[in-house]
Amino acid sequence: MYKVEGSSFGRCLRMTTWGESHQKAVGVVIDGLPSGLRLDLKEIQGEVDLRRPGQSEISTPRMEEDRVEILSGLFQGKTTGSPLSMLVYNRDVDSRPYEKIRDIMRPGHADYACRLKYGFHDYRGGGRSSGRETVSRVMAGAVAKKLLQYLDIRVIAHTTQIADVSLEKTPSMEEIERNSRSNPVRCSDPGTADLMMKRIQEISCEGDSSGGIVDVIAWGVPPGLGDPVYNKLDAVLAKALISIPAVKGVEFGSGFKSPAMRGSEMNDPYRIRDGRVVFESNNSGGILGGISTGMPIVARIAVKPTSSISVKQKTVDVERMEEVDLVIEGRHDPNITPRVVPVAEAMTAFVLADCCIAEGLIPHRFPE
Amino acid sequence: MYKVEGSSFGRCLRMTTWGESHQKAVGVVIDGLPSGLRLDLKEIQGEVDLRRPGQSEISTPRMEEDRVEILSGLFQGKTTGSPLSMLVYNRDVDSRPYEKIRDIMRPGHADYACRLKYGFHDYRGGGRSSGRETVSRVMAGAVAKKLLQYLDIRVIAHTTQIADVSLEKTPSMEEIERNSRSNPVRCSDPGTADLMMKRIQEISCEGDSSGGIVDVIAWGVPPGLGDPVYNKLDAVLAKALISIPAVKGVEFGSGFKSPAMRGSEMNDPYRIRDGRVVFESNNSGGILGGISTGMPIVARIAVKPTSSISVKQKTVDVERMEEVDLVIEGRHDPNITPRVVPVAEAMTAFVLADCCIAEGLIPHRFPE
Amino acid sequence: MYKVEGSSFGRCLRMTTWGESHQKAVGVVIDGLPSGLRLDLKEIQGEVDLRRPGQSEISTPRMEEDRVEILSGLFQGKTTGSPLSMLVYNRDVDSRPYEKIRDIMRPGHADYACRLKYGFHDYRGGGRSSGRETVSRVMAGAVAKKLLQYLDIRVIAHTTQIADVSLEKTPSMEEIERNSRSNPVRCSDPGTADLMMKRIQEISCEGDSSGGIVDVIAWGVPPGLGDPVYNKLDAVLAKALISIPAVKGVEFGSGFKSPAMRGSEMNDPYRIRDGRVVFESNNSGGILGGISTGMPIVARIAVKPTSSISVKQKTVDVERMEEVDLVIEGRHDPNITPRVVPVAEAMTAFVLADCCIAEGLIPHRFPE
Amino acid sequence: MYKVEGSSFGRCLRMTTWGESHQKAVGVVIDGLPSGLRLDLKEIQGEVDLRRPGQSEISTPRMEEDRVEILSGLFQGKTTGSPLSMLVYNRDVDSRPYEKIRDIMRPGHADYACRLKYGFHDYRGGGRSSGRETVSRVMAGAVAKKLLQYLDIRVIAHTTQIADVSLEKTPSMEEIERNSRSNPVRCSDPGTADLMMKRIQEISCEGDSSGGIVDVIAWGVPPGLGDPVYNKLDAVLAKALISIPAVKGVEFGSGFKSPAMRGSEMNDPYRIRDGRVVFESNNSGGILGGISTGMPIVARIAVKPTSSISVKQKTVDVERMEEVDLVIEGRHDPNITPRVVPVAEAMTAFVLADCCIAEGLIPHRFPE
Repeated sequence: MYKVEGSSFGRCLRMTTWGESHQKAVGVVIDGLPSGLRLDLKEIQGEVDLRRPGQSEISTPRMEEDRVEILSGLFQGKTTGSPLSMLVYNRDVDSRPYEKIRDIMRPGHADYACRLKYGFHDYRGGGRSSGRETVSRVMAGAVAKKLLQYLDIRVIAHTTQIADVSLEKTPSMEEIERNSRSNPVRCSDPGTADLMMKRIQEISCEGDSSGGIVDVIAWGVPPGLGDPVYNKLDAVLAKALISIPAVKGVEFGSGFKSPAMRGSEMNDPYRIRDGRVVFESNNSGGILGGISTGMPIVARIAVKPTSSISVKQKTVDVERMEEVDLVIEGRHDPNITPRVVPVAEAMTAFVLADCCIAEGLIPHRFPE
Repeated sequence: MYKVEGSSFGRCLRMTTWGESHQKAVGVVIDGLPSGLRLDLKEIQGEVDLRRPGQSEISTPRMEEDRVEILSGLFQGKTTGSPLSMLVYNRDVDSRPYEKIRDIMRPGHADYACRLKYGFHDYRGGGRSSGRETVSRVMAGAVAKKLLQYLDIRVIAHTTQIADVSLEKTPSMEEIERNSRSNPVRCSDPGTADLMMKRIQEISCEGDSSGGIVDVIAWGVPPGLGDPVYNKLDAVLAKALISIPAVKGVEFGSGFKSPAMRGSEMNDPYRIRDGRVVFESNNSGGILGGISTGMPIVARIAVKPTSSISVKQKTVDVERMEEVDLVIEGRHDPNITPRVVPVAEAMTAFVLADCCIAEGLIPHRFPE
Repeated sequence: MYKVEGSSFGRCLRMTTWGESHQKAVGVVIDGLPSGLRLDLKEIQGEVDLRRPGQSEISTPRMEEDRVEILSGLFQGKTTGSPLSMLVYNRDVDSRPYEKIRDIMRPGHADYACRLKYGFHDYRGGGRSSGRETVSRVMAGAVAKKLLQYLDIRVIAHTTQIADVSLEKTPSMEEIERNSRSNPVRCSDPGTADLMMKRIQEISCEGDSSGGIVDVIAWGVPPGLGDPVYNKLDAVLAKALISIPAVKGVEFGSGFKSPAMRGSEMNDPYRIRDGRVVFESNNSGGILGGISTGMPIVARIAVKPTSSISVKQKTVDVERMEEVDLVIEGRHDPNITPRVVPVAEAMTAFVLADCCIAEGLIPHRFPE
Repeated sequence: MYKVEGSSFGRCLRMTTWGESHQKAVGVVIDGLPSGLRLDLKEIQGEVDLRRPGQSEISTPRMEEDRVEILSGLFQGKTTGSPLSMLVYNRDVDSRPYEKIRDIMRPGHADYACRLKYGFHDYRGGGRSSGRETVSRVMAGAVAKKLLQYLDIRVIAHTTQIADVSLEKTPSMEEIERNSRSNPVRCSDPGTADLMMKRIQEISCEGDSSGGIVDVIAWGVPPGLGDPVYNKLDAVLAKALISIPAVKGVEFGSGFKSPAMRGSEMNDPYRIRDGRVVFESNNSGGILGGISTGMPIVARIAVKPTSSISVKQKTVDVERMEEVDLVIEGRHDPNITPRVVPVAEAMTAFVLADCCIAEGLIPHRFPE
């Protein structure tokens, strides 16, 4: 069970997160920040609010205030170069439902795996495996985005599929930025967003849940990020994105379409435009040999349907060692995809900021 | 350009690899091995031979002997608990073709990204970005497999798609083991293997290349491997697999099919069989909440078509800053998928062995 | 300024600390803990109280309550295997004196070095370089000691020199345990403790400060801890101990006396007693080739005189770039050595617990 | 026994060493090097030659050629930014004497500790614990020195004490550079060097061994190196230096003299000279709060007397579990201090180069 930094992520910029769903708080310590970076608590709060539950009929009604507090590392509104410690207290937590089903393994959840691994652990609300942990990631991501602003790098994620409803066209950066925050499913196309909402509700009415696909795009990424051989940019992004709860797959550029393509289709031709080398296409997703090329980074992740459903499920009581049926009470997100959007954005921004620091592209000390 | 351990992988069991395509040798140093593990050079050589080029008409005719040498860490046929250092000398290397195209960026390769990142680097044969680097991974993987034998864990990869030819049925462990090493494409079904071979050759005759999909399965994996939150087993495997050259995507269990499934379909029901808890299905791919469940680990990776093709490509000469056409001379693998198979196997075995050591499942000292 | 984990320590057991002297709080996140370890907040509080200032006439009168709060990782009084997050709020902080001398470099302090390194930082009270940071270490050390109890390992530090007053005889474990907590200088001999107290006060009356030497001993350490080549037990302990503010040197066993000894004196002879291999002496300090031998670990650290003194000092105002005289107002510890004692103990305990986990000597899951 | 990177050192610049005394070779892989750094094999060879045995009557006559080979990472005489792999084959190795005393624990050596730790290991010549391992460190140090040349940083170590013979005066940088390489004891004063040589031989004639003290000084170190809290420059140097075989203590600046000093003596006053801030003294050894101040770094290490002596020693045969007398045959270094000099220099240079890279003071790509 040696976790060996299981709760830390990043190399030069490093986040260490802590907290369980039903403990006092969840938090993050960010080490390796430059000094003098201006941070606005309101902006961090804004990012956390985006992932907060209870925002529409398609997310869980657990009403959390999720108020971000900064405990160290900020002085006169600027980072000090020392660890930035932030936390959010857990407020609206009702542990009673979890007592009742303590020994009943919820299908699709980590209950059983954690029980075997830890013997003793905080089973309430999924404990450390709960989606609640992602609050820490979003706080860290908000700080990473501030670092990326210095280089005019923008990272945006948006929902491109919900259940069997897909976004057909490829939207522009402007469309994604303009539209994907204005509907609860975080889709860049308002019409498709409506269809997606409807599909979620239909499935939810049957007591069941659905999944989705999230695209993450980063514009303005300079070439040269990522390190051969094991810290390739795509390898590190893959780790970051797959580590998000409920994500079952990740692909870059042409991804799983690549196997059926030919080399002559797949290879992005180089051209010269206005005296600069450019690519005519972006099947590589902005990464060749694990190093960024200067083209937009394009990643896509598969989000599985929410595990907690009110449909009756076959499972076992591991204490009594007997087969039982389980109907999960209370309401849960009928589709978690929209809440994965800010988390995917946060993790991608964190990886890129870390790489930019490693490359020396972000100064050690921000100018006054 | 701070690589910060870019050439090292693993936590308790750690490999550090080195070597470039046209330098004297490629090698690996493995630290963290238990003492007293019996290692047979022949077995390691056998694994390296599986990835060796020049084995059939569908792989590059660069005839390398690829003879593994052990320089330290082995005494009387057993590991000493000190770093195991292994290398393979590069022999059949002709650097001249690379001199000619030094300033011409090969589409699909890392040339341009490396040039921007390093300024000065060994461009010959792709240097450190060359597939040649994977020899080191395979040597390390062979040692990892020996460790896994202690726990009766078996890791096998096989080709399930080549271009548009897919393996239809799901083969058994026995079929994969029996068949996938007996044909050049590493497919578990002999009939499909023939179709795949034919397809590779058809495309190759046109001077073009194709890609494929490789499935990696691990049987006998104990529950409890993997650490929340950032070192989840699937997250670490994703990093390991995406770091293999030419891999553009990875998925676990139902992967990219999950978004369109419902929770009630996706969730693997728990049952009791012979007094033990089992799962009725394996949509999770053997991993829940980032922790192994005891079911087989199932991962799938997308391999892009070989970048080096003899079809004429549009590119640029970055020294002269002018657009040029490129026809890559010599012969290259028309499809790299079969040679990715042993590498995917090696990386998966290494991750699992590392996790087993972390969990204390593999002894510090092997019995006499 | 890439800190790259500058605020984290440990390999399997890992502490990440945060907090600055005049920020809201100081804290620690401990990752890699086994699950099921019973922790008593009162015991942790007891350790923190030992380092608290304001306990006698020889330490600073800053009256801090230093109340430890646990925010995550503990459930029903036992560790969950998830990160343990603890903090202490900073209460009695008066930042005004620091405003006045913001640009005047205090000799012996890190002011100037930090200013050059960070440009912008929290200069109040030394910021991250303040001794206040050691609260986090002591909290982590208290948890490490609980882990070591499982193996009956005891770590005790005590003061053996203050200014020119030295402890002459070598005390037993019992004497150190019994006496060194019952006097403010933490010396194991009551008579010497009185002389030490007197000496501190004499020098303090002149507005000056003094230093001291702390011995750290660990009994019951099993053989085999420590890893060749760079993570030798003494190398890791040296890093841990030198990282404590004000420590200027560290030695093990015969230390700086070894150079003038002969091999025949220095080498500890092996003997057999009661059927077991023992050493006849302990010049090695319990470590040979960087690996524990089973004998007590003996380390010794040199603590420099407190930098803040009321004697007039020559320094510079770096803003005006002019030479000035500085008299530091307020009261400070006239001798920091006694407060280094619990910190040295904490760091040593943490290193040993980390090594015991690495060796598999501490279980992953504590029994009920 | 999880070594977890026991054979790797450094953060941005990272060396991984391998090899045992009686295995085929010893080597090092350096990762994180900038590209375009001109390296001369002859200079690396020169450093290795300085630590080579058999150079005078005071060192072991094992005649090793110790020829450095570079296997990867160098192209056209310049680093490629990929791992630099170097090795030295072991040639003059006679393993027979070790067979005879396999079960007899040599006092002062790591035999017993390693036996308990590993169970099975390569006991011949000390295996991985042998001083032979330091060849790898010296190769890495030679590369680090090339990096430091870019910033005009010079690191020099010299012997300041042998047995009871001490160097009385403090030599200048010029004296150390000029004189300390021209006598076998590596002392900066020719007269004292003669006395030291004589003392070594007197003790050696009695079949016994002696120890010494080595001072390491680094000039031209820029301010700002080192990271609070756990990666303080002195903490990292302490780890690096204590990890050298036979070193029992380390101190910085006034070191173990500090405890008896007063704050007003210890604190180095700031002054302004030629418009720049300077220190009037260097009791801090060039480091305050773990960060370099711009003054020379001054470290001092205690080297114990060589463990292998021909004087009869009391020990045990652990196989037969009986007490025996041991007279170690063959000739060994009567004093290892002079051979520690280049190793201490190498480790210090490596730490400083690593810190300079971390601070962005060394370019990612060296100019043509």
